[in-house]
Amino acid sequence: MDRRLIAAFERALGAEAVLTGIDDCLAYGYDNSSYRANPAMVLLPTRIEQVQAAVRLAREYKLPLTARGRGTNTTGASVPVERGIVIGFERMDAILDIAPGDRTARVQPGVLNGDLQAALAPHGLFWPPDPTSAPFCSIGGNIACNAGGPRAVKYGATRDNVLALKAVTGTGELVEFGARTSKNAAGFDLSRLLIGSEGGLALVVEATLKLSPKPAARAMLRALYRDMESAAEAVARLMAQPDTPSMLEFMDATALRLAREVGGADIPDAGALLMIEGDGDPAQLPELLRRLAGFAQGDGCLDITIPGSEAEQAQLMAARKALSPALRSLASGKINEDVVVPVSKVPALVRFVEALACESGLTIVSFGHIGNGNVHVNVMYDKADAGQTATAEACAGKLFAEVLRLGGTLSGEHGIGLAKRPFMAQAFTPETLTMMRGIKQLFDPDGILNPCKTLPE
Amino acid sequence: MDRRLIAAFERALGAEAVLTGIDDCLAYGYDNSSYRANPAMVLLPTRIEQVQAAVRLAREYKLPLTARGRGTNTTGASVPVERGIVIGFERMDAILDIAPGDRTARVQPGVLNGDLQAALAPHGLFWPPDPTSAPFCSIGGNIACNAGGPRAVKYGATRDNVLALKAVTGTGELVEFGARTSKNAAGFDLSRLLIGSEGGLALVVEATLKLSPKPAARAMLRALYRDMESAAEAVARLMAQPDTPSMLEFMDATALRLAREVGGADIPDAGALLMIEGDGDPAQLPELLRRLAGFAQGDGCLDITIPGSEAEQAQLMAARKALSPALRSLASGKINEDVVVPVSKVPALVRFVEALACESGLTIVSFGHIGNGNVHVNVMYDKADAGQTATAEACAGKLFAEVLRLGGTLSGEHGIGLAKRPFMAQAFTPETLTMMRGIKQLFDPDGILNPCKTLPE
Repeated sequence: MDRRLIAAFERALGAEAVLTGIDDCLAYGYDNSSYRANPAMVLLPTRIEQVQAAVRLAREYKLPLTARGRGTNTTGASVPVERGIVIGFERMDAILDIAPGDRTARVQPGVLNGDLQAALAPHGLFWPPDPTSAPFCSIGGNIACNAGGPRAVKYGATRDNVLALKAVTGTGELVEFGARTSKNAAGFDLSRLLIGSEGGLALVVEATLKLSPKPAARAMLRALYRDMESAAEAVARLMAQPDTPSMLEFMDATALRLAREVGGADIPDAGALLMIEGDGDPAQLPELLRRLAGFAQGDGCLDITIPGSEAEQAQLMAARKALSPALRSLASGKINEDVVVPVSKVPALVRFVEALACESGLTIVSFGHIGNGNVHVNVMYDKADAGQTATAEACAGKLFAEVLRLGGTLSGEHGIGLAKRPFMAQAFTPETLTMMRGIKQLFDPDGILNPCKTLPE
Repeated sequence: MDRRLIAAFERALGAEAVLTGIDDCLAYGYDNSSYRANPAMVLLPTRIEQVQAAVRLAREYKLPLTARGRGTNTTGASVPVERGIVIGFERMDAILDIAPGDRTARVQPGVLNGDLQAALAPHGLFWPPDPTSAPFCSIGGNIACNAGGPRAVKYGATRDNVLALKAVTGTGELVEFGARTSKNAAGFDLSRLLIGSEGGLALVVEATLKLSPKPAARAMLRALYRDMESAAEAVARLMAQPDTPSMLEFMDATALRLAREVGGADIPDAGALLMIEGDGDPAQLPELLRRLAGFAQGDGCLDITIPGSEAEQAQLMAARKALSPALRSLASGKINEDVVVPVSKVPALVRFVEALACESGLTIVSFGHIGNGNVHVNVMYDKADAGQTATAEACAGKLFAEVLRLGGTLSGEHGIGLAKRPFMAQAFTPETLTMMRGIKQLFDPDGILNPCKTLPE
């Protein structure tokens, strides 16, 4: 990058906030997707004014600016533009205040999800979004991609658990959206619009989060089913009664087989598995689990195990734990999509995926958050084999088309980023996309904030 | 209105959808606020294409178009512009489908909240927003003002319970926002932006609602406190544990005195009253109420009554029921504001209101949804007395300033409309208002949709 440009950023932000070394830039060029790019500069602000200054300079010089939390995104949303700028929020990591009586916390975007949970625990509170990456992903990143996790089925995802945001727009203006209260009917709600916008509208510099009281105890039961249909009927029964499970996860037959045969889990053969968690008062948990087991029971249910001890609980988690390493050992390449369909359409989707696996000759493994209809479809392929790679990519395209046909959506919690961008034009009408582009233009008139993401070309 | 204009609308929408009689227009010129105006035309479409045609014609002739559900709004948001057009959605009142397994319902905007609840009951489901006007207010109106109600403390308000919207923008384009699934991280979320926008961005023509399983039983306990502070401490205890009450209402000392002395309720003197409702399985409700009573108990608690029978339940509601007629008999004028402050700031707000009552010589009565910090402040005055009227208006201004100083917001569930529009510039920074105006301009470039509402001049 031009020496004068670097000097301009150093003057505006202070030299300590500007990295241009090739090794530093390399470390900020990728996320948890398969995409990567080489930024020319990394900015690490500590104050809101520095964020504003960075945006104004980037705008002046028409340089693309990609926001970054901790780079755990799986769709390439936090991968910069080649030779562009990364603005990382890792140094803005203060928990500004926790107000237990108001059930709110005010945080900077760089606070790690796990660190926040630890700070909330002494107050008996938690913040519901619980992505697998919680210990090392940032709240700002959670907001950017509308992160979810298994407990979203009861407590909602990020968009349901943020009350107010301060953010810097693409013109460097500081705006404040939402209110620090759990009800708000004043003016246009722009806070939910920023959530899930992948850093393409404004850079979040402060968030007021909605907290929930932490249940004193949690316990899980495991249910095995003859087929996906009978498991889905159990899900319908479980979701139609008021004691919403705090987790409602599933594995399809392929996932189960892999967990047993490759992962070594001690688990019988079955058409589908449900993990059903309840939370609440420890004294009432056994009764709650018995009630949940009653709803899980029904035609096609092969076995229900309610573990008594913590050791037994851990043993039941074995299938889930065995699955990830099993997948890794299976093939070098994995396309992991987090599509969502209406809950009643999950069996149809799983049948479609089974047919797709037969037709393509690839192993495709489905599991995920069935209470929300959020299915992680993993298409396994050999990276070194160009034919298999192309087949896997074609499978992803067919999957998206089917998901949309079933009334679903492209992403439940991972976002669009680079990976699903080509499919946005199938998911939304031209009029709707025009409106989204208008919103982008309004917040970021020069298109410097995370360009080439989210919206299709 | 010009005869040729009327003919143009009749050609486009059909004569049966166009009313111009002075009596018809009169009936659509007011809502549940003190504002009124005389529209020149009322349109009552039955199909989306008619809504699009109406917007296109209104745009061509630069005529203001105000959306109307059933006119129960209390801030004037559904009062038309003088000689403008009302577009009423009462004939688009079909429940398009109910999908119990997906916990969703798809409805036209004119469906009444109460009719939807009745249709959902056989499925064991309900839609959480429960404004007092539920039997005769429309879902479209609930969406326009982000309606809440007492049960929002546990289940959220309208914005938390809508998944997807179809709407017609100010240019007549049909757009579709959100997804029909409980998780969605695809693209910019414009559905939440429309919720609470008071018909100023787009006209909602279809909504996919998020439903909840209906608890089999509900019961309430009544707790009396020495003062507002000890009641607020009980609220903090109740909200810090996971069994969130399904209602958490309060009355201040003035409200209680009125209910007893004017309304004739059999209730002891106290500094504050809480009504605490629990819901769930009938077999477990007594235990839940005992637990909630335990949290309600504490320093300053004078009395807790857990009613055993339904008759006793009804008796406990007496104070609340006595309050409304008592207020009506007290004075001819009432300014009813639904401000919100962080829950911990409710005692400070109530103290401020008491001081304001002393200083102004007016009776001011506070009650409302304390679990959300949502306080209905009723300033009572004699309408015939110009001095008292001016004093009451000045009180409202002082109240808003204090609410904002305490970190609160102008409205929890009634919206901004005409009534609170002048205070928006105090509530939001100029940069934030500029962004809101940009959004308005994007959706409605000619400013024909409900002009002169929500945003300040």
